[in-house]
Amino acid sequence: MTDTVVTSRSREVVIGFDQPFVVIGERINPTGRKVLAAEMKAGDYHRVVDDAVAQVAAGAHMLDVNAGIPLADEPGILAEAVKLVQSVTDVPLSIDSSIVAALEAGLAVYQGKALVNSVTGEEERLESVLPLVARHGAAVVAISNDETGISEDPDVRFEVARKIVERAQDHGIPASDVVVDPLVMPIGAINSAGKQVMRLVSRLRAELKVNTTCGASNVSFGLPNRGGINSAFLTMAIGAGLTSAITNPLNDSIMQAVSGADVMMGHDPDCVRWIGKYRETAASGAQRSRRDRPRRRRRG
Amino acid sequence: MTDTVVTSRSREVVIGFDQPFVVIGERINPTGRKVLAAEMKAGDYHRVVDDAVAQVAAGAHMLDVNAGIPLADEPGILAEAVKLVQSVTDVPLSIDSSIVAALEAGLAVYQGKALVNSVTGEEERLESVLPLVARHGAAVVAISNDETGISEDPDVRFEVARKIVERAQDHGIPASDVVVDPLVMPIGAINSAGKQVMRLVSRLRAELKVNTTCGASNVSFGLPNRGGINSAFLTMAIGAGLTSAITNPLNDSIMQAVSGADVMMGHDPDCVRWIGKYRETAASGAQRSRRDRPRRRRRG
Repeated sequence: MTDTVVTSRSREVVIGFDQPFVVIGERINPTGRKVLAAEMKAGDYHRVVDDAVAQVAAGAHMLDVNAGIPLADEPGILAEAVKLVQSVTDVPLSIDSSIVAALEAGLAVYQGKALVNSVTGEEERLESVLPLVARHGAAVVAISNDETGISEDPDVRFEVARKIVERAQDHGIPASDVVVDPLVMPIGAINSAGKQVMRLVSRLRAELKVNTTCGASNVSFGLPNRGGINSAFLTMAIGAGLTSAITNPLNDSIMQAVSGADVMMGHDPDCVRWIGKYRETAASGAQRSRRDRPRRRRRG
Repeated sequence: MTDTVVTSRSREVVIGFDQPFVVIGERINPTGRKVLAAEMKAGDYHRVVDDAVAQVAAGAHMLDVNAGIPLADEPGILAEAVKLVQSVTDVPLSIDSSIVAALEAGLAVYQGKALVNSVTGEEERLESVLPLVARHGAAVVAISNDETGISEDPDVRFEVARKIVERAQDHGIPASDVVVDPLVMPIGAINSAGKQVMRLVSRLRAELKVNTTCGASNVSFGLPNRGGINSAFLTMAIGAGLTSAITNPLNDSIMQAVSGADVMMGHDPDCVRWIGKYRETAASGAQRSRRDRPRRRRRG
């Protein structure tokens, strides 16, 4: 029954075992987006604002904000992006950087309780990021790799996660404020990537009792019809216990998968949200619906 | 590692824990299809043949054949349908009736090792269907309800399934030839229907070590966008261990969900089947693909 509560100025989002799945919009990230990177570096944030508004309109519950641009003033840019995104949306943010000074700059301007993305199990990261998270009363994403890299054995990754959760507690951060990222590998390269994540998510939930998140789109890297693979991954991972993900809310297939998974998990009582979203399809699909109705058995 | 092997004259299909998911086409069923019912009753099987060919072309690995028409000669019609379907396709069949004489008539003309659909935990059904299954060396679908009806408690349904598996063994039918149907209820009416099935499928696999199947479309009864719900259900149930389902292979969304679930489970090595199916989409989606590539983290 673990709840991770994050907030903006005016809104609270709960990531939790008994909550609808939390979609964290991934789009505000210059990695692999050359135009966006150049604009952000030059102080032009119009696309950041557009992406923020579009993702929230598409149903994102939170937004990830990343300013990882080579040779740029990442702390300054991240802080500016955080301020702007908070000025045009009211969803809580995930402040995303591998540079501690950038996380610090983002947190300094953030209004509310942010999700800090991320800390790893590396000693130097633990001791630089966790004090910052504690000082700001934030929540933190814990990535299950350490100095030895990313293990393909989910049980090794579990132990890294356990170490981070314990160290966070040493710094006064409760386990409920640590959201573990099991690390999703491209399944086109590693055939067992899906099963690794399912096993790890189950153990994290049952044994460490922590919430989980992941960069879901990595799973489909290099494959055609990425939305289809991402949808299958998210649905199955939610079934295994995943409670949030950083993904693309602008992809209808992904958002449908998340909505459907919420129904399956019993997190959409009376299917009110599903029906609200797809009612119109029902009218036009009435003919097919009639033909598709379930088989009734007669007793012999 | 349980394998259930079913055959036609020339083809073998394996339902198993380490096998791709088996799709059993549901369309040859007059229940709720008035035109089909009237045609079959009048001895016109052209739609049966068309449905058989279309479902196999769409990727069905097996076909369910049902002739449940009120006030008709169900044994005669089922036998005729089985013969015709076997004459135009080479996939193994599920012979589907609640009338023992109809199952018997279907089995009498069937070439290969069929899946008999179904036996329940009711005493009278156990003692009439199981001897028939044993005599023909067939496999059988075991539906987890009994004289007391369908329990909403998955653990009660588990015990019914256990009883059927044990009774089958008394009749010389190995557990590997019993495919348990956990019974899928409409989630629009029963909010916990999804979680019930996931729990039951997990237990059936871990404890009874049997394969599973279900009438998957029931889950979405009464809801809009049924394909979306069915896809979410199947993906999550496959993650929980479901190894086959009676569903609609003509629905692209369902077939994509099954293909994606096979990838996630590691049952599509190197994603060869996924890539073969969706390669063309890749070419036209190259632009988006580039923009959607995964985040790379720089170390701080």
